[in-house]
Amino acid sequence: MKALVTGGAGCIGSDLAEALIKRGDQVVAADNLSSGKIEHIASLQGHPHFEFLEGDLENFDFMLGAVRGVDIVYHLAANPDVKFVEGDPTDKDLRQNTICTYNVLEAMRRAGVKKLAFSSTSAIYGISPVQPIPESAFLPEPISLYGATKLGCEALISAFRNLFHFECWIFRFANIVGPKVRKKGRTVIGDFIAHLQENPRRLKILGDGKQAKSYLLSEECVEAMLFAIEVPESALNIYNLGCDDYLQVTRIADLVVEAMGLENVEYEFTGGEGGWPGDVPRFLLDVHKINRLGWRAQHTSEEAVRIAIRSALTNMGVSCRP
Amino acid sequence: MKALVTGGAGCIGSDLAEALIKRGDQVVAADNLSSGKIEHIASLQGHPHFEFLEGDLENFDFMLGAVRGVDIVYHLAANPDVKFVEGDPTDKDLRQNTICTYNVLEAMRRAGVKKLAFSSTSAIYGISPVQPIPESAFLPEPISLYGATKLGCEALISAFRNLFHFECWIFRFANIVGPKVRKKGRTVIGDFIAHLQENPRRLKILGDGKQAKSYLLSEECVEAMLFAIEVPESALNIYNLGCDDYLQVTRIADLVVEAMGLENVEYEFTGGEGGWPGDVPRFLLDVHKINRLGWRAQHTSEEAVRIAIRSALTNMGVSCRP
Repeated sequence: MKALVTGGAGCIGSDLAEALIKRGDQVVAADNLSSGKIEHIASLQGHPHFEFLEGDLENFDFMLGAVRGVDIVYHLAANPDVKFVEGDPTDKDLRQNTICTYNVLEAMRRAGVKKLAFSSTSAIYGISPVQPIPESAFLPEPISLYGATKLGCEALISAFRNLFHFECWIFRFANIVGPKVRKKGRTVIGDFIAHLQENPRRLKILGDGKQAKSYLLSEECVEAMLFAIEVPESALNIYNLGCDDYLQVTRIADLVVEAMGLENVEYEFTGGEGGWPGDVPRFLLDVHKINRLGWRAQHTSEEAVRIAIRSALTNMGVSCRP
Repeated sequence: MKALVTGGAGCIGSDLAEALIKRGDQVVAADNLSSGKIEHIASLQGHPHFEFLEGDLENFDFMLGAVRGVDIVYHLAANPDVKFVEGDPTDKDLRQNTICTYNVLEAMRRAGVKKLAFSSTSAIYGISPVQPIPESAFLPEPISLYGATKLGCEALISAFRNLFHFECWIFRFANIVGPKVRKKGRTVIGDFIAHLQENPRRLKILGDGKQAKSYLLSEECVEAMLFAIEVPESALNIYNLGCDDYLQVTRIADLVVEAMGLENVEYEFTGGEGGWPGDVPRFLLDVHKINRLGWRAQHTSEEAVRIAIRSALTNMGVSCRP
C-alpha cells in the first residue's frame, strides 16, 4: 500500500506517517510547513519507504503530483487555528479547509485514486441539542468558521463519494493531544505551560474555566483511524473519535501546575462561557459507533492530558515533577 | 427598507424583486446574467425604487459595492444546473455556491449589513432516512455537488450568524416552478415541452419515471419568504418551503402531453432510480415548521405544475388545449 498523508509534518500527520511506515506501507507526506514542522518527520527522513513533498494543497498542480500512484489519501492538512480572533482574515478556513479538500478530491478523481480518510472535527456540531453527541442525530449549526468549513468538506466528500464511487472515512476528532507541542496560543496545554514559564504565580484562563471537552492522545487517534479503515461498514464511514468522558479547563490548569511543581498559582478567568468567539464550551462525544466496530480509547481524557503534559514539558525542556 | 436581491434577474429573484417593489421597498437586483435574463426584470426597469447591477458575485469588489446601504440581502444567486453531467467542471458549484456565498457574507460584515435570507435546497438532505424530511432530524449526506455546496453555504451562514451577530433565514426550497421557463435541459417542464415540440410522438424520460418530488410555485415561494422574515423565531431561522405532497415525473409528462393536446405519446425511460447522477429520486418535505409559523402553500404539487405548464406554453408561444 502506498499512502499520501496531507499535513504529514503536522502533529497527527507525522504520527500517522510513522505508524504506516512501521507496518510496512509506503508513505508520501505532503505539507506546506505553515504549521507542520520538519523535526516531526526527522526520524522518517531517509527511510526507503518515506518521501516528503513540500508544497501547498491550494496549488492544484502540486496536489495532482502528490496523489500520483497512491492507493489511499489520508487528508489531515487543515488550518489548525480553531480560534477566530477579531482582525483575522475570514477566508482562511474556507481556503485551507474547504477549497483544499476540493483540490484533494478533484486530484484523486483525475488520478483514479478512490480511497480517502479525512480528519474532521467535533466542531462541526456547534452547540448540540443532544449530549453525548452521536454522529447523525441532528443537522448541525456550526458556530465557528473552522467547524463550518470542515462541515463543507464533509459535504463535498459525501457528493464525490456518490458521483465518483469513492470509498471514504470521515473521522470527527475530539481534542487531540500529544507530545508534539504546537506553538503558543494554539492548544490549551502548550499555552498554559508557556504562560506559567513567563509567570509562575498567575495564570490567565480563557472563559470561565468550566469549558469541558473530550481529549484523545494523538497515537490513539492514529490507531483508531487505521483500525476503522480495515473494516469498512459502507462507502461513507463516519465516526466520532474520542473517549467517553470530558475534562474541564480548570482541571487541565491544575494538572499543568502540578506537573511543573508549582504552588499557589492564582487563576485569572477572562469570563464568559466559551474561551473565544466560536468556542463550543461543553461537549461530550458519543463514541458507541467506533466502540461497536471494535476500537476503544485506552485512556480517559484526564489520563490523555496528563501524558501530553509530561511529554510537552520534556520536549520543551521544562523540568517536571517526578 | 432597501433590499439587495442577488440572482435578481433569475426566475425566483425577479419575482421577489417585483413583490418587494409592490409593497414599497427599494430594490437593488444584482445578476451576472449567466442564467438570469434581462426580460425577467423588464417591467421593473425605470421604476424609481429599482436598480439593476450587472456583475458577478465572484468579484468581491462588485459584491462590496452591491451591499452598500442596504438593510437586507436576499441571496438567491446560485449555479442553477443541479444536474452534474460527465465532463462538467467539478468546481462550478463550489465557486458559484459556496465561494460566492462567502463573498456575500464577508461583504455584508464589512458593510455592517446584518440581515440575510438565503435560498437553500432540499438537495442538501441527500437520501433521507426519514420521510417526510424535517429540518433537523439527521446529519445529511448530500449526493450531488449542488446539494453539498449549498450545505457548505448554510454552514458558513451559521458561523457568520454567531461570530458577527447576523440575523439569518435559510429556506430549503422544494422544486420551484413558475411561468419563467429556463433554458432546455434545466427543468423537467421546459425539457418535456421542448422535446415534445421536436417530436410529438415520443418522449424521453430520465430515470424510471417514478421519481417523486415536491413542487411549489415561484410566487408562493416568494410569499413564504416575505412572510417568515416578518416573524423571526431566532437569530438563525431555517425552514423547508414546499407543500406537503409530491408528484411523480411520469405524471408531469402526462400533464404536459394533455396540456399540449397530444395523444398516444410513447414514453421512453432511460432507466435507473434517479434521473441523473446525484438526483435524489424521491423526497417529501416536512413543512410543519413553516405551517406552524402561519404560512401554508395554496396549491398541491400537481396544481402548481399544471399552472406552470400552462404559463410555460403561453410564454413559449406553444398552443395549449383550453
